Amino acid sequence: MTTHQDIQTDCALIALDWGTSSLRCYRFDRNGQVIERRAHPWGIMNLPAVEHGEDAHAPYRVALQAACGDWLEAAPQAPLIAAGMVGSKQGWREAAYLNVPLSPDLIGSKLTEVDTGLGRPLWIVPGLLQASTLPNVMRGEETQVIGALQTRHERELLIGLPGTHSKWVRVVDGRIEHFDTFMTGEVYGALCAHTILGRTMHKPDAADDAAFLRGARVALGPEGKSGVLSNIFSSRTLGLTGELAAEAQPDYLSGLLIGHELAALKTLYPVQAPAIVLIGDAGLCRRYQLALDLFGLGPVSQAEAATEVGLWVLARHAGLVA
Amino acid sequence: MTTHQDIQTDCALIALDWGTSSLRCYRFDRNGQVIERRAHPWGIMNLPAVEHGEDAHAPYRVALQAACGDWLEAAPQAPLIAAGMVGSKQGWREAAYLNVPLSPDLIGSKLTEVDTGLGRPLWIVPGLLQASTLPNVMRGEETQVIGALQTRHERELLIGLPGTHSKWVRVVDGRIEHFDTFMTGEVYGALCAHTILGRTMHKPDAADDAAFLRGARVALGPEGKSGVLSNIFSSRTLGLTGELAAEAQPDYLSGLLIGHELAALKTLYPVQAPAIVLIGDAGLCRRYQLALDLFGLGPVSQAEAATEVGLWVLARHAGLVA
Repeated sequence: MTTHQDIQTDCALIALDWGTSSLRCYRFDRNGQVIERRAHPWGIMNLPAVEHGEDAHAPYRVALQAACGDWLEAAPQAPLIAAGMVGSKQGWREAAYLNVPLSPDLIGSKLTEVDTGLGRPLWIVPGLLQASTLPNVMRGEETQVIGALQTRHERELLIGLPGTHSKWVRVVDGRIEHFDTFMTGEVYGALCAHTILGRTMHKPDAADDAAFLRGARVALGPEGKSGVLSNIFSSRTLGLTGELAAEAQPDYLSGLLIGHELAALKTLYPVQAPAIVLIGDAGLCRRYQLALDLFGLGPVSQAEAATEVGLWVLARHAGLVA
Repeated sequence: MTTHQDIQTDCALIALDWGTSSLRCYRFDRNGQVIERRAHPWGIMNLPAVEHGEDAHAPYRVALQAACGDWLEAAPQAPLIAAGMVGSKQGWREAAYLNVPLSPDLIGSKLTEVDTGLGRPLWIVPGLLQASTLPNVMRGEETQVIGALQTRHERELLIGLPGTHSKWVRVVDGRIEHFDTFMTGEVYGALCAHTILGRTMHKPDAADDAAFLRGARVALGPEGKSGVLSNIFSSRTLGLTGELAAEAQPDYLSGLLIGHELAALKTLYPVQAPAIVLIGDAGLCRRYQLALDLFGLGPVSQAEAATEVGLWVLARHAGLVA
């Protein structure tokens, strides 16, 4: 059992991955190893209720205290760092975006300080902004990219972060050169829950890789030229003609959308796609890996524990840990 | 004022455009002119409530009686025809799809008869099915296409029916050769109501054509290569960087989606797009015309009263009217 004394001796950093829907906490020892992990549902859109009349900081302070008050008390010397939407305009305090291209080593020197009211400041990692014709932004993913880069030394990498808003980040000679965003996950959710496509679907008992790859193959093939707005209708019509079971439709549609994301990626990297590193949920990364193989993109590998490694590296760059 | 006697003398056909969300009724004279039009909200997903224990036909019978019971009573000899989702599996009775390619003159000879219980049968127009690799279906639009074709005699036409599910129908030598479906309208609704894009939007007081064309231009230009799943995120990020007002975001997003629909169309008709006829809501057709001009597609014209003309022609082909 971990005692108050253990934490006091051991704890070199308390780090937070504080997003829209969850708050994940990491307690690091002096060697940069995570000693304890916690996850709470207190994302910035889901903070604990506070007494009427308390200040705007209160819900954050209450969540932080509830999530790791014991760590804070036992290790009063340990600095506190956070990445994610907590630094957005809707978060605790806005941590202004840094412009891409940039060297990720710079990010740690640009943290934004917030007075927590809990005896020490919280240092918030800035997001990244790419001021292209169609701008792009990220918050939280920059930390995962930094984490993944600790063990990769290729001259050129394409780092994929699949999810609600998938990011694809191009890294050349250790610099973040460019990134793109695809709203694949959120569009998938909206199509299933709020369009006619959802009405004929049944959720399968297990992931149906064949249906997923069938959808991805449409995006890659000649029918893909009709575009995603047209292709998605086939989830319904293949059902009407008895060619696609209701249970296969969710994975087929997922394959169609991810396939169109990768078809666009192939257009953006036409000559020779670089080595790919995936970061994120294991099940989703496995899906992307299947589709990337189909599209002939890669080689593909997966980064482990990118968020926690990134938070530690950023704290080191910031001079918060030795 | 129209009297019972007038209807009795005049009425040659009662025709219905019976879709998912509305029931539109037309009373024709012997010359094929519409004498009276009515619209009710009793689409097949919104039928009037009936007493518990009544049969499955009852909600349809009640809606029909309430919508045009006076016409039925005054003109007992007038036949009754309907097009639209009333002939779907979820409708009053399924009117089996006809296969494309086909000559539209055949459709009128393939109506499905339903006993209305109101003294005469209802004749339901079949939908069309294209059994391509990704199948396509339509129900109701075939009637509009027939209506539009009455006044057009080009060897090749592309008929566009923008809406929830936009259809593009290729007609060669009077035959329906091919059609595509784009879920543009429904995807737009789901993105605005159920994704992060809607959260930063404000509805403008009037349609913002400049914002609409800006979105369409993205789809047409080099940024369009990233695909619609990526481009749509710019509705949010251009807002974050102060380059797109909240009031401009709805029309910008609409332009992006319609632009991607037309970009796909340009790919499907790469050599020389045929003359285009638009059928549908006047405001939406105006939008499409703006975007089609931008894409260099056309010449574009609009068909008037396509539904009612189509219903009359189908009744004639069926031998219901002289």
